Amino acid sequence: MRAAVQPLVVNVGVIGPGKVGAAFLRQMQQAAPRLLRECHLELRLRAVSDSRHMWLDCDDEALNGRVGGAQTWRPVVLDEFAAYVAGHHGSAAVLADCTASDSVADHYAGWLGAGIHVVTPNKRAASGCLDRWKAIARASDASGARLHYEGTVGAGLPVVQTLRDLIDTGDELLAVEGMLSGTLAWLFNRFDGSRPFSALVREAHALGYTEPDPRDDLSGMDVARKLVILAREAGVGLSLGDVAVESLVPRELEGLGRDDFMEALPAMDAPMAALLARARAEGGVLRHVARLDNAGASVGVQVLDGGHAFAHGQLTDNVVRFATRRYCDNALVVQGPGAGPEVTAAAVFTDLLRVAGAMGVKRCAC
Amino acid sequence: MRAAVQPLVVNVGVIGPGKVGAAFLRQMQQAAPRLLRECHLELRLRAVSDSRHMWLDCDDEALNGRVGGAQTWRPVVLDEFAAYVAGHHGSAAVLADCTASDSVADHYAGWLGAGIHVVTPNKRAASGCLDRWKAIARASDASGARLHYEGTVGAGLPVVQTLRDLIDTGDELLAVEGMLSGTLAWLFNRFDGSRPFSALVREAHALGYTEPDPRDDLSGMDVARKLVILAREAGVGLSLGDVAVESLVPRELEGLGRDDFMEALPAMDAPMAALLARARAEGGVLRHVARLDNAGASVGVQVLDGGHAFAHGQLTDNVVRFATRRYCDNALVVQGPGAGPEVTAAAVFTDLLRVAGAMGVKRCAC
Repeated sequence: MRAAVQPLVVNVGVIGPGKVGAAFLRQMQQAAPRLLRECHLELRLRAVSDSRHMWLDCDDEALNGRVGGAQTWRPVVLDEFAAYVAGHHGSAAVLADCTASDSVADHYAGWLGAGIHVVTPNKRAASGCLDRWKAIARASDASGARLHYEGTVGAGLPVVQTLRDLIDTGDELLAVEGMLSGTLAWLFNRFDGSRPFSALVREAHALGYTEPDPRDDLSGMDVARKLVILAREAGVGLSLGDVAVESLVPRELEGLGRDDFMEALPAMDAPMAALLARARAEGGVLRHVARLDNAGASVGVQVLDGGHAFAHGQLTDNVVRFATRRYCDNALVVQGPGAGPEVTAAAVFTDLLRVAGAMGVKRCAC
Repeated sequence: MRAAVQPLVVNVGVIGPGKVGAAFLRQMQQAAPRLLRECHLELRLRAVSDSRHMWLDCDDEALNGRVGGAQTWRPVVLDEFAAYVAGHHGSAAVLADCTASDSVADHYAGWLGAGIHVVTPNKRAASGCLDRWKAIARASDASGARLHYEGTVGAGLPVVQTLRDLIDTGDELLAVEGMLSGTLAWLFNRFDGSRPFSALVREAHALGYTEPDPRDDLSGMDVARKLVILAREAGVGLSLGDVAVESLVPRELEGLGRDDFMEALPAMDAPMAALLARARAEGGVLRHVARLDNAGASVGVQVLDGGHAFAHGQLTDNVVRFATRRYCDNALVVQGPGAGPEVTAAAVFTDLLRVAGAMGVKRCAC
């Protein structure tokens, strides 16, 4: 008979109990018994913070997403929050940043330097200022604490880790091509000329597929951030300003208030109809594509051959296509829903399990 | 200034220096300097073994694939080989089984029990006898040593780990559907009625796309093994005998010698032509599909809708489609070349890096 294995305790703090954070808390709670039983991993939620409060000493109620109640709660001071999570007995402390905040990303280097791991779908650090990114790398390198961010590209799809594995095993990235916005994929999959483009944008907006201000999708900047993240993962020290981003928003609509913009949407219709006509004349389809190769990084509408992998996307699917030295004739393709609280939270959870894996937690079926 | 980090030494033994083993040795040698510099990981090749010899104290020459020369070499005794690799100073010993041998898999439980990790694209253990598989699990559980086998399904494509992450984060597998044989994918992508099926099999054979005896592909057993591996990863204790495998080899050709079989190939043409006619009458395409769901596990030819993800496969691509509770409307799809020495070796290498990761080796871009 084997001796009982002492579980490895990982203390977790969640920043941003919004849709993604709440889904993450739920997933952790649901998976915790199996992880304890089969992987000898004990996940302990120690604290949750939103932009103004923090809840310490969370119990199962908090894990249920019903934060508050009898727990302590205080105006948030993020470093104090981090120190609280790290102050518990355990093998590791992990902060899950479920915000999209640049100011939370400002704390990463300090936390990592103090040995606190960070897992996040927040794109700000990995696509933001290179100096901050390098400071984060130095802090992580010095302490051994990890920053994982699988959820920044394609949400729960295996994209960042796949690229990491290709690079670490010595493969060479020739090009990465992606449809990295579910919203834009949906718009271009539907745009067949039967309805003006503005009507599709309005429909997507009404269905909640777009950001509250659809320009946040149509500008292509969110896609450009994802491309920067993939470039850095492949060792190319790109910044957002290095990406040639072709916004779909006509210049004259950029400065409008949101309501006025929604009103003025039909100004997009003529240029988009012209693009579609051109694509059809060439026998191809229109798609919004991010591309990184030797020639640089670009984001915008492209005319693709009808046989291209991106021509057959489903609904709001993301698609990422890695062309490498080993995958040169045919690319390695990952495809599927690339947004939504559940799959984004699953990416954060996967990152958390990678941290636990690095502490020796065993995750095999055998 | 930070102190110099002591590299983590991993001692590696390679069993089976064939095409995959040689590619793995080459990849390790090429990536080693970067891994040492950036990840503080020192990979040390200690020994290589084929079915009759072993080379101990390998130097760089051996890493070049030019094993032999001045090194010791002796008739192979696998456990002695394993003990030799594990006998070196280091943080971990890893054996890379690059064979397709069932008798090598018989040693896994012993090696894992002794704390020696195993990485392999060999399908025998993970798809073979359940009792042996459970003994392997117990040994791994007791010592903490890992068995990784990403290369068993889809070669270097992220399939096994992706399923592992879905399950560990609490997702629920509803169905997995795959085109898991590059050979069969190629045959059905090309089979349009313009040439008899036997002519395509002969062409694939001549191009080296099939096994030396094409029945090893056409029988569907190799695909069934992969399906068993995915099922077990998802917690379903399946055995090969539980898979409903519909062989493409007509019963009367099963017992023939290889040359006689190649001669008698046209006996496949009439049934295959009938299948194609049926698919066309239904407006669909013919594909060789492996499927696991609540109804069970099956492998065989199916008629698929022209809009199905598998209808657009490229050349010899593998495709795996995970339908889960979280990925229910649209599945998570991984696609790309799923065979070949380079990508298979890359899977073994990725597994090796996962072992190193569990020892604390840091693998992040930041």
